[in-house]
Amino acid sequence: MSLSLAAVAAFLEAELIGDPLVEISGVGSLQEGQANQIGFFQDRKRRQELKDTALGAVILRPEHLSWTASNKLVCDNPHVAFARLAQRLHPRLRPEGRHPSAVIDPSSQVHASAHIAAHVVIGANCVIAEGVVIEAHAVLYDDVQIGPYSHVHAGAVIGAEGFGYANDKGQWLAVPQVGGVRIGARVDIGANTTIDRGALEHTIIEDGVKLDNQIQIGHNCVIGAHTAIAGCVGIAGSARIGRYCMIGGAAMIAGHLSICDGVIISGGTLVASDITEKGQYTGVFPTLPHRSWAKLAGSLRYQVRHLVSE
Amino acid sequence: MSLSLAAVAAFLEAELIGDPLVEISGVGSLQEGQANQIGFFQDRKRRQELKDTALGAVILRPEHLSWTASNKLVCDNPHVAFARLAQRLHPRLRPEGRHPSAVIDPSSQVHASAHIAAHVVIGANCVIAEGVVIEAHAVLYDDVQIGPYSHVHAGAVIGAEGFGYANDKGQWLAVPQVGGVRIGARVDIGANTTIDRGALEHTIIEDGVKLDNQIQIGHNCVIGAHTAIAGCVGIAGSARIGRYCMIGGAAMIAGHLSICDGVIISGGTLVASDITEKGQYTGVFPTLPHRSWAKLAGSLRYQVRHLVSE
Amino acid sequence: MSLSLAAVAAFLEAELIGDPLVEISGVGSLQEGQANQIGFFQDRKRRQELKDTALGAVILRPEHLSWTASNKLVCDNPHVAFARLAQRLHPRLRPEGRHPSAVIDPSSQVHASAHIAAHVVIGANCVIAEGVVIEAHAVLYDDVQIGPYSHVHAGAVIGAEGFGYANDKGQWLAVPQVGGVRIGARVDIGANTTIDRGALEHTIIEDGVKLDNQIQIGHNCVIGAHTAIAGCVGIAGSARIGRYCMIGGAAMIAGHLSICDGVIISGGTLVASDITEKGQYTGVFPTLPHRSWAKLAGSLRYQVRHLVSE
Repeated sequence: MSLSLAAVAAFLEAELIGDPLVEISGVGSLQEGQANQIGFFQDRKRRQELKDTALGAVILRPEHLSWTASNKLVCDNPHVAFARLAQRLHPRLRPEGRHPSAVIDPSSQVHASAHIAAHVVIGANCVIAEGVVIEAHAVLYDDVQIGPYSHVHAGAVIGAEGFGYANDKGQWLAVPQVGGVRIGARVDIGANTTIDRGALEHTIIEDGVKLDNQIQIGHNCVIGAHTAIAGCVGIAGSARIGRYCMIGGAAMIAGHLSICDGVIISGGTLVASDITEKGQYTGVFPTLPHRSWAKLAGSLRYQVRHLVSE
Repeated sequence: MSLSLAAVAAFLEAELIGDPLVEISGVGSLQEGQANQIGFFQDRKRRQELKDTALGAVILRPEHLSWTASNKLVCDNPHVAFARLAQRLHPRLRPEGRHPSAVIDPSSQVHASAHIAAHVVIGANCVIAEGVVIEAHAVLYDDVQIGPYSHVHAGAVIGAEGFGYANDKGQWLAVPQVGGVRIGARVDIGANTTIDRGALEHTIIEDGVKLDNQIQIGHNCVIGAHTAIAGCVGIAGSARIGRYCMIGGAAMIAGHLSICDGVIISGGTLVASDITEKGQYTGVFPTLPHRSWAKLAGSLRYQVRHLVSE
Repeated sequence: MSLSLAAVAAFLEAELIGDPLVEISGVGSLQEGQANQIGFFQDRKRRQELKDTALGAVILRPEHLSWTASNKLVCDNPHVAFARLAQRLHPRLRPEGRHPSAVIDPSSQVHASAHIAAHVVIGANCVIAEGVVIEAHAVLYDDVQIGPYSHVHAGAVIGAEGFGYANDKGQWLAVPQVGGVRIGARVDIGANTTIDRGALEHTIIEDGVKLDNQIQIGHNCVIGAHTAIAGCVGIAGSARIGRYCMIGGAAMIAGHLSICDGVIISGGTLVASDITEKGQYTGVFPTLPHRSWAKLAGSLRYQVRHLVSE
């Protein structure tokens, strides 16, 4: 696949400043890119890389026009334009249909346009919509529904029984988990991520949610539309996350709480109570040279003795 | 499967207040449940939901009798009663035997009543007891033994070689891990959880332990009976956890330490030394609006400079 | 396999003090070992175990000679000597070749001496070098290269698409990830660990790196040679970790930063900015009895109000 810069400009509805006949066959970085590749510029710290780039063209904002002699495509959101163009130049080619090693319960409906990769396992009464991609080794238990154009990565497990037990004089009695999982359209689920089925009602992942790798989502969670969650995050059972939230890597959300729309949780932060106002929330200990940390931790422990004795 | 309320009361040895002829065919929640479903009440915050419920019956404690006009089953531990009834109404139907795609080393003994799901891999010299369920894609390396009625969820890996290396002038030399894994009866192991084999002796998970998803248990750990561990917890090598402990999500336990019986570790807490008295332990930074957090973190960093210069 | 102590001494180039005719057929611990096993001593806290051991021989340093009446092999680094001997006594026997259930794209090159276990999936244009072991259920996406004698454990996913999105008025647009993954020689990758492919350039894991279980490595990370990373660590995209680093369990490294050679990060620490000097760095809240912690957390929250109002 190859496009002239004139065709790229037309596709992006961007202004071209430079040679319309240059042929672009892929995307590249400012630092390593080559003359048949296109990149984008947005991060001012990379100004020198922009100046020195060997890329065939760069997508950038009007205010950075003068920072490079390269061919330029000018638009307001270079990252979005770059993403759209990259999707065209590097289409994901997943064939329709099921790999013969996939094991799919006959009661489940899988759209003919879905891609079901090697060794995928799909339980009973599932519904897989058009254009869904399920990568190798993903496992869906029973009663999981996945909306159009969602993408489930390798090793993800959807619909396992949640951590629901009643305590009977010290011993744990499993509570059957009879809810399912409902996943909307254009949801991405990362490699080795796990989403438990609901206890009584369903666990719900709304449209456009993006989940990175190694995430755990407990039973009966609701993740609002277009929320993005980075790797290693854990969300305990029955938490409700709003729409358009961003949760940083390794953050942890306690169970049975609500986070409103538009909240940003910093990486590594543990959220233990409701958040009702949009904004960014953080809770991580400062990282220090070990000796300094030990003094600070000792000082805090000293304060505790004082506080407790009050 | 359907039971009259009279039959439910007899099964639970609970007092029935209401219509004994009502037929119950499943469990439901206070909020969404229907007339042919039964639920339970224990959380006082749900009092209004209890009053408004459309459930066919509710299991509750004697002191809450007057809070609903619904049919009632009265007992001291509604959650346990509910769990027992739910197990009867929604029995887990996993067929005995091995899926043809499972790969099992012929040296391993698998009880005829065990369920071995699609694409499971079982190494050499394993022993799988009666009634065990091993879900799709779980992997057992060599010399793993699993006791009766334990349940291994999809993607779990049991018996991989632990992180054992000797440092030879900066380079890491693998130390062969020659211990196995011994898992007791009625242990649950969550999806994508990993349990390493022992270095010299075995890694041991005692009876009744419940492990959630995405947990990592290092080589030579011993997890005491009836301890419950929530998702994303990491337990480093040679840690010994007592019996009847509860470890919250994303807590981390350092290696080579001991935690006594009956300890509760709060979610997100890092335990770096022995715990010898039962009780709850916590160590997480308060979560704050980002600007407030930045001031607090700055203040702590300032204190450090002062402490270090002393 | 069995060796006389004379043969062991010759193999290790260690001094033997004791009976050269004792036959050793395996490794054991000081506490549980038997007369036909060999162990090592390095941890002074185990002095009594050393005195009481029933092991056939112990590898130890010259200064500990007098602490046991057992047969002894004397050398400067007992742990390394033990590892080398254990590798000889307990060789890992993974047959060369591919399990018939493995699914390998015909465009990929797999060395004839590599071991490809059951249900492994290997995408297009991968290169697997000599002596590599890929355990059951590991998944390699397209364009992943693995150097000689590396070991990929069960359930690991290498080359999944990283978490790369452009934000288009609140919705996330996937940025195609066109880089691959390059893994050096003698790298170990733990069970259920995930390593994302690069966005534009490759994600790189250099020679001799050891990754434990449940680790997440984002797109375009570079992990320097001989760095060891413990379980549950998350490393966000484009982070560069130096050589000879050690990262403790559940530490989290933010994206787009650099850590120099020889850095030690304590378990549970979140690193959010560059580290340019070798040494140990820590950032974890002290763990306390819950009531004491609540007082300390309350006190910090009080300080915040004071700081913010200033």
